[in-house]
Amino acid sequence: MAVYTDVAADELEDFLGRYELGKVLSFKGIAEGVENSNYYLHTQAGTYILTLFEKRVAEADLPFFVATMEHLAARGISCPRPVADTQGRMLARLAGRPAVIVSFLDGLSIRRPTTEHCRLLGAGMARMHLAAADFPLRRANALGPASWKGLYAGSAAKAESAFPGLPALIGDELASLDRAFPEALPQGLIHADLFPDNVFFLDGALSGFIDFYFACTDALAYDLAIALNAWCFEPDGMFNVTKARALFSGYRAERPLAPVEIEAMPKLARGAALRFLLTRLHDWLHHDARAFVTPKDPLEYAQKLRFHRASTRPGELGL
Amino acid sequence: MAVYTDVAADELEDFLGRYELGKVLSFKGIAEGVENSNYYLHTQAGTYILTLFEKRVAEADLPFFVATMEHLAARGISCPRPVADTQGRMLARLAGRPAVIVSFLDGLSIRRPTTEHCRLLGAGMARMHLAAADFPLRRANALGPASWKGLYAGSAAKAESAFPGLPALIGDELASLDRAFPEALPQGLIHADLFPDNVFFLDGALSGFIDFYFACTDALAYDLAIALNAWCFEPDGMFNVTKARALFSGYRAERPLAPVEIEAMPKLARGAALRFLLTRLHDWLHHDARAFVTPKDPLEYAQKLRFHRASTRPGELGL
Repeated sequence: MAVYTDVAADELEDFLGRYELGKVLSFKGIAEGVENSNYYLHTQAGTYILTLFEKRVAEADLPFFVATMEHLAARGISCPRPVADTQGRMLARLAGRPAVIVSFLDGLSIRRPTTEHCRLLGAGMARMHLAAADFPLRRANALGPASWKGLYAGSAAKAESAFPGLPALIGDELASLDRAFPEALPQGLIHADLFPDNVFFLDGALSGFIDFYFACTDALAYDLAIALNAWCFEPDGMFNVTKARALFSGYRAERPLAPVEIEAMPKLARGAALRFLLTRLHDWLHHDARAFVTPKDPLEYAQKLRFHRASTRPGELGL
Repeated sequence: MAVYTDVAADELEDFLGRYELGKVLSFKGIAEGVENSNYYLHTQAGTYILTLFEKRVAEADLPFFVATMEHLAARGISCPRPVADTQGRMLARLAGRPAVIVSFLDGLSIRRPTTEHCRLLGAGMARMHLAAADFPLRRANALGPASWKGLYAGSAAKAESAFPGLPALIGDELASLDRAFPEALPQGLIHADLFPDNVFFLDGALSGFIDFYFACTDALAYDLAIALNAWCFEPDGMFNVTKARALFSGYRAERPLAPVEIEAMPKLARGAALRFLLTRLHDWLHHDARAFVTPKDPLEYAQKLRFHRASTRPGELGL
């Protein structure tokens, strides 16, 4: 959660003058999203989320993210829909930051997903992947395997004293991934951050996806691997194969997995664990105390990484 | 701003089962209120704020706060109105904390109040004071002058190293207030925390007051003194007598000030400056890094206190 930027009422009113949303009735910072400032915005036209992009999101990527949401929403995937101003622009600036207004999405994120939530997530993710099949834009995954050594370089000096033993694990993993990270898998648009806080449920159904600001073009199965790590481990660190089976079967009911994707899953999951371990480690060591954010524990992902290093067959993951 | 407590979706749904608000559609932590956790709550019945009271608010005081909002709302003062459950109870427990659901209030808080905002605030405050004239409950001001020495005792040991010179100012002030804090002024219900973030405006009118969790029975003029300090100084620390005049004249158009209240204002403002200096100093020195709160600068109020020590006539404050 994060609200970094203060927006004054008069600044907001000036800004909204460029939209056809009527007068502003309410505006509150909300505790949602880690990288950006998000605000609940109620106007005479309805309810919206206003997002201000803080420095971690590259401004050059914003047209891609906006187009992603536009494309998916137009194909019936429930996700925030960017709102255009009177001149048709969906990207703007407010308080010195890039800004976007999107539609407000009802739904609740689930802290303790059940097996059924995992199945619904799998099915919804597959539908999102299929809906993006004709999406024309491409964006490389800025946090893909090619970035991991550089990402770790910024943390290496302080890592051992903060987390004894962690550099040995990471070093070994970076060396072995060089030889082994799967390539040549079916590619497409992936969300790349489908943690439980980015998925809404309502009345026992998946009601929407939010926070598309890591979306990119990558192996579709990698989206599943990220979600496997985020949804199918219990709070005590144990892998729950029943939830994993539900995630995969939900997905495969909508989009069958190719044998090469099934075969690659253990290594994708191992890579996904390393990717979140590295970003969490970075955020832990470079935490800005002024940000209203508690950094997430890197060791949760070290434990998941160790699990995947020991489990190399798809069957062990429920596939 | 603060969101301290995590509420799980299933926990929330169980809790809402006791209310007639229909199904929950959305629930988000919002960055509002310093002492409590506040959530935007959208249900089939409408939009609400759910507040969880963290430890600083005494549970025994909650019936007073709830009755205050009920009373004022029933008399046409725009403020959050507590929502009763099916058994008529307005106080509940959620996630191990006392909890209350109140109506959602439209409006924007103003970071840079103009002279007109000050006038509107004065008039609205006076109407609130008048509307509470027949409010039967009483609550002593737990942060009144009798508490200040004890409050400072918890900060004294660390104050000099954090803010050189501040203990001398505070010690001198505590000693002189013993002889001089005004008593025997017209009493009644005061909000006691009317900072700009607790006052909403819409379309050039005051649209509501929020956050009644410091409300108490005290000198009515003390509410004005608190607001004088919070609204009538510029960001550079300069006192703006034009804004002060607007605040007072707005108030007096609705409720005339007695000569004794006018005479007392310099000392009330000086006491109000000390009160917020002491609580900010305490919060600064005892800041919980896990709370999503940046402690406010105590020195802002040290500067206001020094101003009031030098200005002893009501005329200097615009009265």
